Amino acid sequence: MQLIGERINGMFLDVKQAIADQDKKVIQDLAIKQTKAGAAYLDVNVGTAAADQEGTIQWLVESIQEVCQTALCLDSQKPNVIAAGLKVLNADNGGMLNSSPLNKKSDEEILDKYLDMAAQAGPKVNVITLTMDKNGVPQDIDTRVAIAAEIVQKAMEKGFDTQRLFIDPIILPVKVPNAQAQPGNILDAMAQIQFLADPPPHMTMGLSNLSQGTNERSLINRVFLAMAISRGLDSAIVEVLDKELMDVVATSEMLMNKQIYSDSFLKVF
Amino acid sequence: MQLIGERINGMFLDVKQAIADQDKKVIQDLAIKQTKAGAAYLDVNVGTAAADQEGTIQWLVESIQEVCQTALCLDSQKPNVIAAGLKVLNADNGGMLNSSPLNKKSDEEILDKYLDMAAQAGPKVNVITLTMDKNGVPQDIDTRVAIAAEIVQKAMEKGFDTQRLFIDPIILPVKVPNAQAQPGNILDAMAQIQFLADPPPHMTMGLSNLSQGTNERSLINRVFLAMAISRGLDSAIVEVLDKELMDVVATSEMLMNKQIYSDSFLKVF
Repeated sequence: MQLIGERINGMFLDVKQAIADQDKKVIQDLAIKQTKAGAAYLDVNVGTAAADQEGTIQWLVESIQEVCQTALCLDSQKPNVIAAGLKVLNADNGGMLNSSPLNKKSDEEILDKYLDMAAQAGPKVNVITLTMDKNGVPQDIDTRVAIAAEIVQKAMEKGFDTQRLFIDPIILPVKVPNAQAQPGNILDAMAQIQFLADPPPHMTMGLSNLSQGTNERSLINRVFLAMAISRGLDSAIVEVLDKELMDVVATSEMLMNKQIYSDSFLKVF
Repeated sequence: MQLIGERINGMFLDVKQAIADQDKKVIQDLAIKQTKAGAAYLDVNVGTAAADQEGTIQWLVESIQEVCQTALCLDSQKPNVIAAGLKVLNADNGGMLNSSPLNKKSDEEILDKYLDMAAQAGPKVNVITLTMDKNGVPQDIDTRVAIAAEIVQKAMEKGFDTQRLFIDPIILPVKVPNAQAQPGNILDAMAQIQFLADPPPHMTMGLSNLSQGTNERSLINRVFLAMAISRGLDSAIVEVLDKELMDVVATSEMLMNKQIYSDSFLKVF
């Protein structure tokens, strides 16, 4: 399970404030804490408040790289912000571009740009792609799988290793009206996406989005994460500082035979 | 989700002692507590210590029926013990016979006996059947599904409503050597068993068996229960007094669109 720590994101008030104050200590503390908690990647998202998005992502990346070598996950829907981050990223530590839909509302092939940027950045830089196209986020299982298939096909055509693709089926907040069937549909879609390539493409998701606005955020995240791991999810953007969530990851991996059982399997993890 | 409270079982020391002392207060308290916690059925198992198994199950059934009308789940591998329990069971409250394999180590058709006893007891008495035959508990997915298919077929041939069948895929302790693939296999088997009849047969499992002998019993139970509910499990023999486990049931049902989301979905459950 490759965990991506979600906390360095301008939508969190402490990070937003740290960006405004150019206080890199706050960012560096979050980087170290999340790394210690088991993050294989640290998400880096400037949020919406910063006026200079390109400069801000570079400041974040450089601040983090001063204190740790954890792979960074550059998080923006804007190719120019990703490109700015890549200029200062130490790609030898690995990296992730987060994220690209298949294409944008226009017919512009946005995925091409992200795959090209990752290819250029080096062999350890992966790409998160959303099962989403110009029609938006699909509601049903079949369209999600069809878009995932197009993504895999496009990567293959470009000679981009499908093992560097992390497909994100996009989980919507359970609180959104008329989205009640989404969690079940996503699980079924994931079960099929696994068979699109051999070895299967990786799958990831921004888990916390599911529980947005609810009173039981950690519980909802924990239950759905267990279900998703049982369908092949092998990466997730999560709150790695949530100890109970990490225990669920360890237990799920043990039950799905990815980690051997021992009486101290939680500690081993 | 039809929950079967597991606590009235002679393998628990308090129940064993209560049976030895003929102290029905202990049993009645457990019956009331489990009913309040959401048990649709109360499992009744005399354990192995009682010399007179037939008399003991009758004493347990009668003691419970003095204080509540919850459906009882008569739990024994011995048809004569089940038959004794049925003699005093108030079948108008509903009931369950727990459990029969397809057949025994000899070719004796044990399932026939259980189906006949349930049919005779009345329309509200159901049967738990194990995906197990004279060769024991299967290790793989296909044999589990094949046995479940034979069970459904036998019920249909006898004119026993498949909606009264609760198929139990038998979860072994995760601590058992060489059983690491079992949880995943059981989930995959359940996904297929759902399609054996329309409407699908119910599925149940003795969840606590999974975590037998581990240090993290509740956590392991919670994680696997979430996974299993996402594959169609609609009943389980569980520790209903484990509040955290009940929260996982409520959350799983909400995520799988069996309960509508509201901010107080845990309380509603």
